[in-house]
Amino acid sequence: MPLALPAGGIFFSLMIPDPAGPQRWQPLAQRSQLQTRVFAVLGRTYRHPVRRIEREFVVIDAPDWVNVVAHTADDRLVLVRQFRYGMDGFSLEVPGGIVEPGEDPVAAGVRELQEETGYAGTSARLLGSVRPNPAIQANHCHLVLVEGVTLAHAQAWDPDEEIEVTTPTVAEALALAHSGQIVHALALNALMLFEPVWRARRAGI
Amino acid sequence: MPLALPAGGIFFSLMIPDPAGPQRWQPLAQRSQLQTRVFAVLGRTYRHPVRRIEREFVVIDAPDWVNVVAHTADDRLVLVRQFRYGMDGFSLEVPGGIVEPGEDPVAAGVRELQEETGYAGTSARLLGSVRPNPAIQANHCHLVLVEGVTLAHAQAWDPDEEIEVTTPTVAEALALAHSGQIVHALALNALMLFEPVWRARRAGI
Repeated sequence: MPLALPAGGIFFSLMIPDPAGPQRWQPLAQRSQLQTRVFAVLGRTYRHPVRRIEREFVVIDAPDWVNVVAHTADDRLVLVRQFRYGMDGFSLEVPGGIVEPGEDPVAAGVRELQEETGYAGTSARLLGSVRPNPAIQANHCHLVLVEGVTLAHAQAWDPDEEIEVTTPTVAEALALAHSGQIVHALALNALMLFEPVWRARRAGI
Repeated sequence: MPLALPAGGIFFSLMIPDPAGPQRWQPLAQRSQLQTRVFAVLGRTYRHPVRRIEREFVVIDAPDWVNVVAHTADDRLVLVRQFRYGMDGFSLEVPGGIVEPGEDPVAAGVRELQEETGYAGTSARLLGSVRPNPAIQANHCHLVLVEGVTLAHAQAWDPDEEIEVTTPTVAEALALAHSGQIVHALALNALMLFEPVWRARRAGI
């Protein structure tokens, strides 16, 4: 059936499940299956309210993350290139990292940008927040825009970090995103939420 | 330093690391830390070629995934809404699932679309492939475009699936993506790679 867009109808329908539609499974219990330095793996037992079955589903529980679009006054973006052991190769990305417990996501973005690249800006705001994988992962990734950035500090890498900073023009960075040369899903989210903001500004809207 | 775009320079620089830039860590060994139904957690020991240190990094090893933009002849997209235990709530997404061993990613997308929604199309192709999280995750997510889709089959859900199908116009779906009502990072990647394809087609390019 077609989805009606206006008047907040979508949001309402997402929050209040249709009794005939997908049901909200009820969490009953959870246990830790593994604790690592960067995430925990939980086994969470759910009960289906209608089917009356119970299932243990696996959930990756990590802190929230932040990814940062850092925009210079001369219309460049600050990108980072580093070795990523998950993909066992090099990845070109936007700066980012882990939101500390209790830390504001925008403040976390400003901090990570400065630590990884030495860049600091004149203003910062949230572009949006996504779920890296709502099927198996509990956390959010916040996407932050920092504007008017300049190289203001020394980098302060974590012990195992080694980061090359590049500053393509916005048009070049977006071309990299659209042509498959930036492959990090969350970095792409950040750049693609930034794109309409940037186009509107250029059009003087 | 600014990044030079033309003449394939970026691709080359990503493949052949600058000796003065980030180094490629060398994998030495790996062990299984946890095996679940949907992923394994590996401990992979790496050695830094210059610093001569060894570290065990944690890698989530999952099969490749596929997400599908399914486009009807009357300019609608097929979206699915389901309960996602990772985020413990409802999520509006594009259809998708797991690529079977040896399966072609485009064929996997066509199959998952049909199983989850009953829709089948007249043509299918790869929009792009991303890394869900290159920092800690080894797999790819392939983003597939299926065009000319119509409701052609019965749904064939996996045992624990329960899926509501909606068919907003493309403009409505993209508005949902840009306004934070679609939060699944990989679904957003698929929609945002589709957007310029769709705009070009509408402009008759």
